[in-house]
Amino acid sequence: MSRTYKLAVIPGDGIGPEVTAQALKVLDLVAAEHGVAFDKTEFNLGAKRWHATGEVLPDAELASIRTHDAILLGAVGDPTVPSGTLERGLLLKLRFELDHYVNLRPSKIYPGVPTPLANPGVVDFVVVREGTEGPYVGNGGAIRVGTPQELATEVSVNTAFGVERVVRDAFARAQARPRKKLTLVHKNNVLVHAGHLWTRTVDAVATEFPDIAVDYLHVDAATIFLVTDPSRFDVIVTDNLFGDILTDLAAAVTGGIGVAASGNINPDGTAPSMFEPVHGSAPDIAGQSKADPTAAILSAALLLDHLGLPEAAAQINAAVESDIASRGTSPRSTEEVGEAIAARVAGGVAVG
Amino acid sequence: MSRTYKLAVIPGDGIGPEVTAQALKVLDLVAAEHGVAFDKTEFNLGAKRWHATGEVLPDAELASIRTHDAILLGAVGDPTVPSGTLERGLLLKLRFELDHYVNLRPSKIYPGVPTPLANPGVVDFVVVREGTEGPYVGNGGAIRVGTPQELATEVSVNTAFGVERVVRDAFARAQARPRKKLTLVHKNNVLVHAGHLWTRTVDAVATEFPDIAVDYLHVDAATIFLVTDPSRFDVIVTDNLFGDILTDLAAAVTGGIGVAASGNINPDGTAPSMFEPVHGSAPDIAGQSKADPTAAILSAALLLDHLGLPEAAAQINAAVESDIASRGTSPRSTEEVGEAIAARVAGGVAVG
Ligand SMILES: CC(C)[C@H](C(=O)O)[C@@H](O)C(=O)O
Ligand SMILES: CC(C)[C@H](C(=O)O)[C@@H](O)C(=O)O
Repeated sequence: MSRTYKLAVIPGDGIGPEVTAQALKVLDLVAAEHGVAFDKTEFNLGAKRWHATGEVLPDAELASIRTHDAILLGAVGDPTVPSGTLERGLLLKLRFELDHYVNLRPSKIYPGVPTPLANPGVVDFVVVREGTEGPYVGNGGAIRVGTPQELATEVSVNTAFGVERVVRDAFARAQARPRKKLTLVHKNNVLVHAGHLWTRTVDAVATEFPDIAVDYLHVDAATIFLVTDPSRFDVIVTDNLFGDILTDLAAAVTGGIGVAASGNINPDGTAPSMFEPVHGSAPDIAGQSKADPTAAILSAALLLDHLGLPEAAAQINAAVESDIASRGTSPRSTEEVGEAIAARVAGGVAVG
Repeated sequence: MSRTYKLAVIPGDGIGPEVTAQALKVLDLVAAEHGVAFDKTEFNLGAKRWHATGEVLPDAELASIRTHDAILLGAVGDPTVPSGTLERGLLLKLRFELDHYVNLRPSKIYPGVPTPLANPGVVDFVVVREGTEGPYVGNGGAIRVGTPQELATEVSVNTAFGVERVVRDAFARAQARPRKKLTLVHKNNVLVHAGHLWTRTVDAVATEFPDIAVDYLHVDAATIFLVTDPSRFDVIVTDNLFGDILTDLAAAVTGGIGVAASGNINPDGTAPSMFEPVHGSAPDIAGQSKADPTAAILSAALLLDHLGLPEAAAQINAAVESDIASRGTSPRSTEEVGEAIAARVAGGVAVG
């Protein structure tokens, strides 16, 4: 059996290309072992492109990206691009245009990883962040800009359609996990309209999943538990903005954004899903081979899993886990980490 | 010299009355030492009242509260009241009606307090959370509720007037602190309209405070630093929702909501300011004398400071600090903690 997948690669800016190179190396290696191949098209998008041409995401390139089976993204942006230009015009544009309604962010404390918590316990949960609604829709505006009468708004848009599909996906993920627990995070005591839609939807879908234990936390309380009792979480489902905040916090708690991977998933398969590390382009350390490629490599594992290759994904996860467990305190270069993980993939670390 | 202040007291529900009793005991004690007195009016508002009468905050009571010099609130709510009823109808109604545009939340790791962080360092910052705008304005709605076509929105409203006054207050607070540092937290790469108003306002006001070092963090990055490097913060200024999230997280990091106090401040003095612990009514431990009254007592100190009695406030803070430093591991009742702090106030703990 052999299949070739079309992979769109957006290395991006800063440390993006550095970590992407390592992720591709590991991806190709494991793919070969599983009898599949990746036919890659690189897209030059991000700050460099914007500086050079003023373009963010031309329609023709978006159309071309659509023809691929999946997308691997490094990181985009640098501080000289006006804030929002690449975020709204490229990253969120891709998530919205390709209907990435499940923004999947696993959080796990790997044995050996340093965490800022004194007693974290066993932590292994996944955040299912809604990816196409909420305050991220870009439905805001401003009048009288720059005057003392300026008024600026941001509208969080939530639909039964959009909430139900992501809630259903989260329940299915909880079902596939041993603990079978789902926590809705929102702020339904203040954002009552959106909050009640989310709460009612979870209650309704819960009746179809009687074996899943469901609870609810306000977003402020959830941040407390993420540092005082992170092991209580299994699957968290939440809106786009709360998910953004909670997943960065979760990454910090579970050993840093150096190991936090994410998938922007279109579960219906109507467009390619996109996989990226949670971290940004980190211009301060770019070009120095200091970036940790682990998050990008774990994102490649999420990509394999999404393409229906769970054994290949597990092989990367096991290699990463075993590499992390044996990491010393002496710093390694981006390539060294990539090589070490690749060696463990090739060496056939036991997949547990 | 002697002055009597009119104090509105809203003990509320759950542990609210328990912690409020201890806060009042300490407040009266320190007031007597400073030649002032509090003439208290108790308002029966919250879940109990709602259950008994269906009323949340009758106009006449709001008008009566307005005639006071300050408000001390315990905590309101219980799980049998529909979510949002008391939050929007009582707590937020008071904040909005009384123009509490500065929601002040100090975060400090007191020596001796247990924190979930392995190496927190010296942490002592204050969050200036905007209190009268943002997604808290209640400007949302829903159509086709309960149908597959439901649409629910929440609008974040931000005005130059509202942003500038709270930013100015935050700069003034930074100026009065030794480190003279101010961090704006927002999400201006996604919420571009509101975010740019906040960013531009901070940049403009900064020119009047040339000795304040200013920086900016996205809210997701701010949560990371709150657990990995909380000592970097001095004064944080942020919007209503981000402030809600960051201050609960800050409380968790600095030893728990048992010691997190807050002031809902109207700096212009056009209405009384309100002081309350950050914690809620905790119905699960209510009536058992298990609640820690420290946050309520520290809220009373913020109240004294706001009324222009900084020495009296410092006396409470010193008593709390010295009590915390000598806390053992054996649990004490709510009264015992209150008594211990009162004894240190009476005993004249040195005010540092
Ligand atoms: C860069 C930004 C638009 C993005 C987001 O807010 O979603 C990032 O923080 C993330 O979490 O992927
Ligand atoms: C109870 C709720 C309305 C309130 C808020 O969100 O402001 C609380 O969480 C707080 O922080 O004081």
